[in-house]
Amino acid sequence: MLEKIGTFHFVTESYLLDFRGRVTIPMIGNYMLHAASNHASLRGFGFSDMTEKHTAWVLSRLAMEISRYPAMSEPVALYTWIGEAGRLFTQRCFELVDAAGNPMVYARSIWAAIDMQTRRPTPLDVEALSVYIADKSCPVEKPGKISPVENETEGVPYKVKYSDLDINGHLNSIKYMEHLLDLFDLDLFTAKEVKRFEIAYLSEGRYGMPLTLHRKETAPDKYNMAICHEGKAICRATASWIVR
Amino acid sequence: MLEKIGTFHFVTESYLLDFRGRVTIPMIGNYMLHAASNHASLRGFGFSDMTEKHTAWVLSRLAMEISRYPAMSEPVALYTWIGEAGRLFTQRCFELVDAAGNPMVYARSIWAAIDMQTRRPTPLDVEALSVYIADKSCPVEKPGKISPVENETEGVPYKVKYSDLDINGHLNSIKYMEHLLDLFDLDLFTAKEVKRFEIAYLSEGRYGMPLTLHRKETAPDKYNMAICHEGKAICRATASWIVR
Repeated sequence: MLEKIGTFHFVTESYLLDFRGRVTIPMIGNYMLHAASNHASLRGFGFSDMTEKHTAWVLSRLAMEISRYPAMSEPVALYTWIGEAGRLFTQRCFELVDAAGNPMVYARSIWAAIDMQTRRPTPLDVEALSVYIADKSCPVEKPGKISPVENETEGVPYKVKYSDLDINGHLNSIKYMEHLLDLFDLDLFTAKEVKRFEIAYLSEGRYGMPLTLHRKETAPDKYNMAICHEGKAICRATASWIVR
Repeated sequence: MLEKIGTFHFVTESYLLDFRGRVTIPMIGNYMLHAASNHASLRGFGFSDMTEKHTAWVLSRLAMEISRYPAMSEPVALYTWIGEAGRLFTQRCFELVDAAGNPMVYARSIWAAIDMQTRRPTPLDVEALSVYIADKSCPVEKPGKISPVENETEGVPYKVKYSDLDINGHLNSIKYMEHLLDLFDLDLFTAKEVKRFEIAYLSEGRYGMPLTLHRKETAPDKYNMAICHEGKAICRATASWIVR
């Protein structure tokens, strides 16, 4: 049996950093999808294994807490393991560490499986997943309820484009993050940084779909966000900022 | 001395494919930037070497010809080498091959160095670069002149956002490609694919800059594009489509 905790190594790439010279939240999301995808494939429940059963993994929620953003050409390691496995949802945890082993990011994600025909949730193979549950600490608050802000804000219009689509023809989960973070002004990114980012995917965005992007400060330095289609949220998120 | 031709291996990632299950042109661009950046660093003229001299590489032009797009979880190898080295411009070539060694993509790119203070072109170290000129065939037509289309088309407005910015605070070279390809309708991506894509970077996009994106079919299945700021092109591109 493979070890429960998967380890993946990355070196940050200069041309993928933001204007601060730091890895972005969507890029950290990409590292996590890489690790999740490979950790699952190697253990018999990856993309292809799911496709064979006419099912697909769907990311339902993700919460990440960032104590330090990786800098240029920095080698990092990402650990991933299964935290819990239920009939409809499984929890996958992540720890991103620097070369000295110091934690930089912790994250907790919730995944469901859907039937590719009906697009409805389908039961998970709890037994197979449970084999890989690791008893490792993941000090990140569980993804919680995010209160709506779409009715109190006007919203920025956005239409789903070719480059937003994933292999299923839906708005890519990383692109949701990108569009939401683009709601913040550059001055905020200069003065502060996001210490906690949380996102809940509610339904699928499709090509050409007219969306509205919403953002509201609900407490000092804490913003709730939503992406809506015809007034109904397809995604909610929250970002907490801190001066460093 | 390191070999002249650098080789870089990738495995395409399912969550980064487009709706056709194929690697996108911007993703191929990312592979090329990765290879270029590492090939240069290992040979003493990378990002950090340039920064020490208060200079930076700037991608000026890129033309790629794609005979086959990498599919899901496909292992590919990317070769890169220097084609020519002049006082102000150097030419870098690329060949992307599949696991059997069959060429899938060829590309030719033109790079300049700029002084980081003045943002003006600065002479290259022709001697150092010339050591690595490889005599390998790169069957892709040189990037040429792209005729303007901005005066004949209305243009789609776009404002530069946080996620568009690179480490220098300018519109990321890959993001230009992404925004330009988003000008095409999904039906076209379904029926045809781009066999040649060419882009010329003319000046830097900055945060909040209001841009207009232009596209015009100049011959059957051949489109010229432009990104303009206040009516002046900051980028021109062309895409030729083919039925496969």
